[in-house]
Amino acid sequence: MYPQLEVDPELTERATKVRLLAGNRDTKDGSSAAIDDKVSKKAPPAPSKWRRALLRHVPVLQWLPAYNMEWGIDDFIAGITLGLTIIPESIACALLAGLPARYGLCSAFIGPLIYLIFGSIDKVIIGPTSLVALVSVQFTVGRPIEFAFLLTFLSGIVQIIMGSLHMGFVFEFISMPVIKAFSSATAILVIESQIKVLLGIKYLVPGLISSVSTLSSRISEANMGDLIMGSCAIIFLLLLELLERVARSEKRSKALRICCRYLSTSRNTLIVLIGGIVSYIWLGYSEKLPYALSQNALSSLPNFTVPSLTIVTQERSYSFWQILSELSVGIVVIPIVGILTNISIGKLTPKGLVDTNHELLTVGLCNVFGSCVQAMPSSGAFTRYAISTACGLKTPMANLYLGIIVLLALGYLSPYFNYIPEATLAAILICSIFTLLDFRLPLRLWRESKRDLGIWLLCFCVCVLFGVEVGLLVSIVVTALHLLFLWARPEILVKIEELDEMQYISVVPGNGIYFPAINHLRSLVLKACTQADFKITVVIDGHKITGLDYTAAQGISKLSSDLCRQSDASSSILLVLYRFPAHLQHLIDLTDNLVFCENEGKVKEFLTQESLRNGHINLKDHIRASIDLGYKVDIE
Amino acid sequence: MYPQLEVDPELTERATKVRLLAGNRDTKDGSSAAIDDKVSKKAPPAPSKWRRALLRHVPVLQWLPAYNMEWGIDDFIAGITLGLTIIPESIACALLAGLPARYGLCSAFIGPLIYLIFGSIDKVIIGPTSLVALVSVQFTVGRPIEFAFLLTFLSGIVQIIMGSLHMGFVFEFISMPVIKAFSSATAILVIESQIKVLLGIKYLVPGLISSVSTLSSRISEANMGDLIMGSCAIIFLLLLELLERVARSEKRSKALRICCRYLSTSRNTLIVLIGGIVSYIWLGYSEKLPYALSQNALSSLPNFTVPSLTIVTQERSYSFWQILSELSVGIVVIPIVGILTNISIGKLTPKGLVDTNHELLTVGLCNVFGSCVQAMPSSGAFTRYAISTACGLKTPMANLYLGIIVLLALGYLSPYFNYIPEATLAAILICSIFTLLDFRLPLRLWRESKRDLGIWLLCFCVCVLFGVEVGLLVSIVVTALHLLFLWARPEILVKIEELDEMQYISVVPGNGIYFPAINHLRSLVLKACTQADFKITVVIDGHKITGLDYTAAQGISKLSSDLCRQSDASSSILLVLYRFPAHLQHLIDLTDNLVFCENEGKVKEFLTQESLRNGHINLKDHIRASIDLGYKVDIE
Repeated sequence: MYPQLEVDPELTERATKVRLLAGNRDTKDGSSAAIDDKVSKKAPPAPSKWRRALLRHVPVLQWLPAYNMEWGIDDFIAGITLGLTIIPESIACALLAGLPARYGLCSAFIGPLIYLIFGSIDKVIIGPTSLVALVSVQFTVGRPIEFAFLLTFLSGIVQIIMGSLHMGFVFEFISMPVIKAFSSATAILVIESQIKVLLGIKYLVPGLISSVSTLSSRISEANMGDLIMGSCAIIFLLLLELLERVARSEKRSKALRICCRYLSTSRNTLIVLIGGIVSYIWLGYSEKLPYALSQNALSSLPNFTVPSLTIVTQERSYSFWQILSELSVGIVVIPIVGILTNISIGKLTPKGLVDTNHELLTVGLCNVFGSCVQAMPSSGAFTRYAISTACGLKTPMANLYLGIIVLLALGYLSPYFNYIPEATLAAILICSIFTLLDFRLPLRLWRESKRDLGIWLLCFCVCVLFGVEVGLLVSIVVTALHLLFLWARPEILVKIEELDEMQYISVVPGNGIYFPAINHLRSLVLKACTQADFKITVVIDGHKITGLDYTAAQGISKLSSDLCRQSDASSSILLVLYRFPAHLQHLIDLTDNLVFCENEGKVKEFLTQESLRNGHINLKDHIRASIDLGYKVDIE
Repeated sequence: MYPQLEVDPELTERATKVRLLAGNRDTKDGSSAAIDDKVSKKAPPAPSKWRRALLRHVPVLQWLPAYNMEWGIDDFIAGITLGLTIIPESIACALLAGLPARYGLCSAFIGPLIYLIFGSIDKVIIGPTSLVALVSVQFTVGRPIEFAFLLTFLSGIVQIIMGSLHMGFVFEFISMPVIKAFSSATAILVIESQIKVLLGIKYLVPGLISSVSTLSSRISEANMGDLIMGSCAIIFLLLLELLERVARSEKRSKALRICCRYLSTSRNTLIVLIGGIVSYIWLGYSEKLPYALSQNALSSLPNFTVPSLTIVTQERSYSFWQILSELSVGIVVIPIVGILTNISIGKLTPKGLVDTNHELLTVGLCNVFGSCVQAMPSSGAFTRYAISTACGLKTPMANLYLGIIVLLALGYLSPYFNYIPEATLAAILICSIFTLLDFRLPLRLWRESKRDLGIWLLCFCVCVLFGVEVGLLVSIVVTALHLLFLWARPEILVKIEELDEMQYISVVPGNGIYFPAINHLRSLVLKACTQADFKITVVIDGHKITGLDYTAAQGISKLSSDLCRQSDASSSILLVLYRFPAHLQHLIDLTDNLVFCENEGKVKEFLTQESLRNGHINLKDHIRASIDLGYKVDIE
């Protein structure tokens, strides 16, 4: 199982280190010492507190000094490939969000440039995503276009506030089944929303059910031109995706594999290019195309302006509070949904741990600056993560090349975007979102954890039927309620145990006992006492108790009074609190029939006293033991 | 400490019982058996399931068969005394709720009559309370009077629904500091609301701050007549309350003590009687009184009508949905606030344990029937609990006499209610609510539990400043968030331990590990590994773990992959999962460097293998031990 032992020159050095650490340990307090920051500080020449904070918050300073030529080439290739991918994707997402293409591209250049400096997860590429677009369209549809930028701005502000207040731990309350169900549901919703584009039918209704019913009632309006163009694009994309398998197989020649990989990773750009050229040529011969083009306003480079907090249009003007009430929960949902993807990607990378607060601050900055160049809300995306992994991206430097490519496209290619067929963009969204569809997890949960499956199903169904933000909220609340319920009904083992033939009721609470559980504990103990039918000592074993609050401590005192009342007036049932953590004992009011004890010998002593007092054990047999224990027995 | 041992004739019998139970235990499974329902069923001739359910839901069947003359006399006296107390109190509460006196009295007769049959807590007397009145006035003020009955009806329905759905456990999430702060804040608010009545100033503004500022700006309008009448009433009530001390002192003669007790318990009735007689006589000589009288509409016995779910007045009509939106959170807050008092009283009684679901159903019935006789929302009250304890109430039969007294008052005394000075009613409310003011608890919490003190202060301040229902909600949410936080940051002990001179990182999680905690656990372990600076085995001791969900299980598998990556490519850090509950092990994906083990010997074996493999221990010394363990070592 393990590799065979080899004698190694490093061995001696390592062994010395072990001894050193052991030595440190012994001088400290004689027992084993908790590992804390101080130990790590001593080892290398410690960087100052400020320097460490700076390195943590501006990660570019960590990797830039060590940057070399080899990384540079890898990053350049990855950056160009990602740039060519993100351009069509951004246009598609902008259309999904009901915005002109330009606004998607603006997100796709400002986000990466800021993430280059502050980003902590190498393979996250900030830009528009179909998920965020799908959620944000609900809050901006039918409103002036300025609502989209203000939503970006406010999302950024909310993210920065959450990051500054260290509220990143909120995201820990989103369990994996919830994230998976949420992303699968998003995939379903995005695919559904793009099917109508593939069919060339134009409408905008909220909700899956009404959308599907609208689609089915208007299916006769389907346009063959769009459908053929879309289907061809999907087939093309799927075929090029298959090329990646060739790129991975060791049998082929290296040149073929590299060629296949770049063909595969730039498939989105290729289909858009092909679609555009076809349209351009066709329009040379005919005035009208058989399929729809993405009608985008002509645009040049964006101008940098701080967004205004009031909106004045020809029809009406909105004050800041009116805007807030129109965007309503959007300004909380968009930031959370946006950051969720980044965290999920971060967990997939080798480092595995994400500094959520730092990520909130960074994406917040991307959004705030984004809103200044009229961008839509942005975040990382799984599709781009897959491509950056395939291209062998090394550092966030790739963001620089990506940003430049997008800027060039904005500046010089904008007029040509009008030749892109809408159906090809729909095909790109559909093919890229497929990676998020994951139905293996629920199958696995079916076998292993029905409770987690329930959460998955709940989240998935609510997301699909009532919108992803509702589904996310409901599932987080339900999982939180389940956690609360665990405090109300913790595992408490109540058994009749025996020690030296003396019986007692053993109560072992599993977790900390807080106020929601104390009445449960009391009624379990009282029930056990009633059923025991004779006077029996109760021993609560607190070695698993990690916490106790005032209400619970009062409840334990009350339990001892309950035990007084249960028995006849002359004597009361003894309540032994065994192995309770010392720092929690002072909370419990002492009563006549409540004792603390720390070891089993003491428990035995109390049990003997009580058994003698209640006459449960044979007197003669125990007189010696009782005298040994220092208990005085008077017999006439 | 313990009474001296006496030889008792019951000893032998008891000892036999012990043996019998022990015998049962041994035949079951050889180990100690959990106590369950079956044991208790065997002992007496078991009542059938239906009979037990009936006895539980209709408690009158439990005590009525055993009812005797002695109880009857005690209950009669208590009933009459309570009746004389509840009449002025109900009138005062009705006025506090902005309703004519009649509606308070209607609650005070229907509630007790229903509680007589279904009530499970002996000393709870259902009727109007200042607390419920104070909360409900916010939802009914300025609206047609029918809103009050519909609020009663809907509160009852909500209580019945909560009881039927067994949602009683929700109340376990209200901790004792919250209940105490809530009732103290109520007392402050009621006293503040009555001070303006004492001063004879009439206004109705919501919120303590605006009320106090209105009062201070209009203080010049104060009426000396009301103030003198109110002050005299308060002094009278306080003096009579002092008589109870005489009634308790053993020195006095029995006749004097009984006399004092009844004078003391009927003080509310006496002051109302005196006030009424003074007004009646005064009006014989003068046309106008120097103080305000409680202007109540004349009324007779109420008629029994099912409340209409729509309200039509001269000004406008309300549909059911409009009524619901006007009452808004009231239909949830009133039921919760109402039942809270009953639960708190139940916990004070000798039985100590309350069947919250049954209590919800009973009080719900009281409110639903109450709304049919135009009653205001009702619940138990601490003031009445104090009096019923003082009067020696034995069974809920006292409710019968009480109900009859109130009905008689409604039928024959209504015209005379108009002679009661308002200031005396204010004095009654102020004196009765004083028992709820408790500032000893925060002082105690200051010494013993700062966290509970924080909750107390939060609840108290928010209740006083923003209303009791807001305060209650905020404190419940905050305490729930704290419980959730305990799942996110559970106690996890990470130390370097040593076993036979072999060091390892020992990780002991305190509670169950659920999804919010898993990243915390992972980062703690990884940090410890980085700091250890050499390849060190990680042992997670799971003996305290009571639960594990899918996300956490996946996190543990991921931790083992993290440990793979941390070390150099050739070999990985071993992750030993020690004493994990067997039913949780299948959730964790097995990886190359993850092993389960159940005993310390096995841990030692793994540690030896790893130490040898990594060259941390002296080879020669351990060859023998390793061979003993069956581990093959190849040395050239």
